[in-house]
Amino acid sequence: MSDFIASKEDDYSKWYLDIVQKAKLADYSPVKGCMVIMPYGYSIWSKIQSILDKKFKETGHENAYFPMLIPYGFLEKEKDHIEGFSPEFAIIKDAGGESLAEPLVLRPTSETIIWNMYSKWIKSYRDLPLKINQWANVVRWEKRTRPFLRTTEFLWQEGHTAHATEEEAVEETLLILDLYKRFMEDYLAIPVFCGKKSEKEKFAGAVSTYSIEALMQDKKALQAATSHYLGLNFAKAFDVKFQDKDGKMRHVFASSWGISTRLIGALIMVHSDEKGLILPPRIAPIEIIVIPIFKKEDEINKKILDYSDCVVHALKKAEFRVEIDKDVRSSPGFRFSSAEFKGIPIRIEVGINDVLLNSVTIMRRDKDRKFKYQISLDSLASKVKVELDSMQKDLFKKALNFRTLNTKEIFRIGKDSYELFKAYMNDHSGFVLSCWCGGLDCENIIKNETKATIRCIPDDFKAKDLTGMACIYCASRAKYFVLFAKSY
Amino acid sequence: MSDFIASKEDDYSKWYLDIVQKAKLADYSPVKGCMVIMPYGYSIWSKIQSILDKKFKETGHENAYFPMLIPYGFLEKEKDHIEGFSPEFAIIKDAGGESLAEPLVLRPTSETIIWNMYSKWIKSYRDLPLKINQWANVVRWEKRTRPFLRTTEFLWQEGHTAHATEEEAVEETLLILDLYKRFMEDYLAIPVFCGKKSEKEKFAGAVSTYSIEALMQDKKALQAATSHYLGLNFAKAFDVKFQDKDGKMRHVFASSWGISTRLIGALIMVHSDEKGLILPPRIAPIEIIVIPIFKKEDEINKKILDYSDCVVHALKKAEFRVEIDKDVRSSPGFRFSSAEFKGIPIRIEVGINDVLLNSVTIMRRDKDRKFKYQISLDSLASKVKVELDSMQKDLFKKALNFRTLNTKEIFRIGKDSYELFKAYMNDHSGFVLSCWCGGLDCENIIKNETKATIRCIPDDFKAKDLTGMACIYCASRAKYFVLFAKSY
Repeated sequence: MSDFIASKEDDYSKWYLDIVQKAKLADYSPVKGCMVIMPYGYSIWSKIQSILDKKFKETGHENAYFPMLIPYGFLEKEKDHIEGFSPEFAIIKDAGGESLAEPLVLRPTSETIIWNMYSKWIKSYRDLPLKINQWANVVRWEKRTRPFLRTTEFLWQEGHTAHATEEEAVEETLLILDLYKRFMEDYLAIPVFCGKKSEKEKFAGAVSTYSIEALMQDKKALQAATSHYLGLNFAKAFDVKFQDKDGKMRHVFASSWGISTRLIGALIMVHSDEKGLILPPRIAPIEIIVIPIFKKEDEINKKILDYSDCVVHALKKAEFRVEIDKDVRSSPGFRFSSAEFKGIPIRIEVGINDVLLNSVTIMRRDKDRKFKYQISLDSLASKVKVELDSMQKDLFKKALNFRTLNTKEIFRIGKDSYELFKAYMNDHSGFVLSCWCGGLDCENIIKNETKATIRCIPDDFKAKDLTGMACIYCASRAKYFVLFAKSY
Repeated sequence: MSDFIASKEDDYSKWYLDIVQKAKLADYSPVKGCMVIMPYGYSIWSKIQSILDKKFKETGHENAYFPMLIPYGFLEKEKDHIEGFSPEFAIIKDAGGESLAEPLVLRPTSETIIWNMYSKWIKSYRDLPLKINQWANVVRWEKRTRPFLRTTEFLWQEGHTAHATEEEAVEETLLILDLYKRFMEDYLAIPVFCGKKSEKEKFAGAVSTYSIEALMQDKKALQAATSHYLGLNFAKAFDVKFQDKDGKMRHVFASSWGISTRLIGALIMVHSDEKGLILPPRIAPIEIIVIPIFKKEDEINKKILDYSDCVVHALKKAEFRVEIDKDVRSSPGFRFSSAEFKGIPIRIEVGINDVLLNSVTIMRRDKDRKFKYQISLDSLASKVKVELDSMQKDLFKKALNFRTLNTKEIFRIGKDSYELFKAYMNDHSGFVLSCWCGGLDCENIIKNETKATIRCIPDDFKAKDLTGMACIYCASRAKYFVLFAKSY
């Protein structure tokens, strides 16, 4: 355990904040609930952006940019939308030294302003589908905030698509859900459950919301992404119609979906340890850090440094993201810690011994010091590649294993089943797969009594047979398998 | 002249707006003074971003993200800053259903919030230099707006650097000025003058502002970028000090610099014609558009289409940014126009004749139809490369030639010199290189009488001898050669 980072056991919340600070991911700002994303944190966000942006483009989406300021009246046009979001509005009534005729709201999400534009842009079936994504900042005035997980202002992407048919819009909603799932698992090495939200938990303005749910180390779930099927709700609110091939005017079907800087919070809470952040190689801004171990003699140090530069050069040539920390003023231990704080997947140490043997010493961030080993310079690039690939897989496996251990099935088999459920949620936490009648009352009571909410109606258990299953709370006939968990 | 785009002669302003609309760069939004950047416009912005971002990183800058909401009190800390920007503030007093204790301002620029953070981050000479860039949206409540040129909300990048010495901060300011100049000339093919602003025209809060000035086709200047040396102004306002190597506490020197979506306006007004936008190849999101010329017979069209796909494939393989417009419902003429609106540098037509001859027909956006020619498929990639390179150079040459023709030297040689200057500004416009005593009165009178302002004290004429030169207005001894122009 580091002197600088709290123990997870003692105080998971402090541990999280220590990582944010020690890895220099973000800093508190003087504006309540707003954080500063520091260069290292931002470089992780840039990596997330570039991977997803490519995937969005490959699936036919284009980027655009819509105004951040939304007329208040727009937000009122969809009744669930205004109801859900208005408590979190930040409102501008004065600008340019004058009072505005109509207040403007800082976008909490952009369905309204975008569907207002779509009413201008969509006239014919030829204009469909329209698939636009926006990378932007949004503002939601949250009461309790925490860096990355929930901040007043945050960065995100929001996709907004328009389709001629319901079928196509639902297909898009699920395509993106799957794209998010693969991104989470293949890049962030975070295993996720996908599924539909309950009516209570869905997006304000959606027909149905699908989400991606991940399990954090403290056994709380984190909603990592959402994809909404919006039906005709926004097309009706903004009167968006198209002339179909048969000449008839029809309303346009919609989807919207997004991920945010919150994913950086998930990365911290799925993989990291008490030495700092641990980043899956595929998302790491720096894959390899080279650390020369200096001696007292300048002459020797010159050799070590030249050799280290060769190592960096060789790795750069092989297209690895590599950096060197050759700060002579800092001890090797200090530089090791600083690389550990940042979660750099591979550390390469270069001592005089390595120079003499034409070798380097290599260590993986996710392994103990005793797995440190020396390899010859000749095999460096290929060995590093193998280690990065296997670290990526190992992190996923470890997280999946943790989730499996903390996903329990508790079904209604008798009167004490719900008591068992409650006790388990209280003592153990994690995901609980159970059955639900679909009633709002049961959902509310369970939430009040256990703090656990229905995270989703998971796709992953679709094959399971509902016959004879009963609601965990009321014992009436179950309509769904659902995943319960306490959540962020 | 297109039926859809106004004549430049008749109405330059309408011509500009027609291009914005026809090229689908931006659309008006329902929010006063805010535009929607449409996918094609945004793809140009992305190209600008990716080129500059790479250059910033190569010169040691890192990206970060600071809150958009700035406490009002912060903005008051630097007196010139608040004076210059407060008329354009958009202010939030209500959020989350409550009145805020202190109003928040939507960032018009981020010096204050960033230097507040720097006061936490900078303690020692080891923390310097600190060179951070931010890609963000900003809000300035402008009275008169025009898409890209001046909008209430716009996208930009703002660099904010901190240095131990004045010399280093000035060096950074000028390094970025030069980086901008090279970007403008090498990528956007826009020749620019660089130089210091007068005291009157400098950034509110700067010691000195340097700008990049380009000449539009209507002979008005456009300030395309600025780089500010901020001295100790913000370090003093936010008490940012570092302990130097000698143990003494010193204030930190600063620079800030930015470019915005305004550059897209410059691209329109430097290169484009009455058929639409003309984009320099290096900044064009699409370099080549392939347009199959269909016949009536399906069988023939199948051949044309297959062949066109081969052409696209070959160009993609050679890493060109290429698209195909194979919309059978639109006539070739319609598709030609649409590619012309968008300013795609090279158009490749594929007719049945081309299929038979194993050729394509190629045409450059900046040349007349009579320069259209047929080439064999074998030499396609190499020929396209040559055309793109030469188009890039030709556009720059043309713009430089235009600027040279419209940059006139008018010096004080007698009593009627100022009358000549006035008449020239009135009748001809463009850049006028003249001499100035440095007095605010002369600067103001000239502005009032001619609408021309001092664009900058140009670096480009540094070698010129000031001996014996007199102020164009008051005839007293000249302190500077200056460039006058009417401007956007």
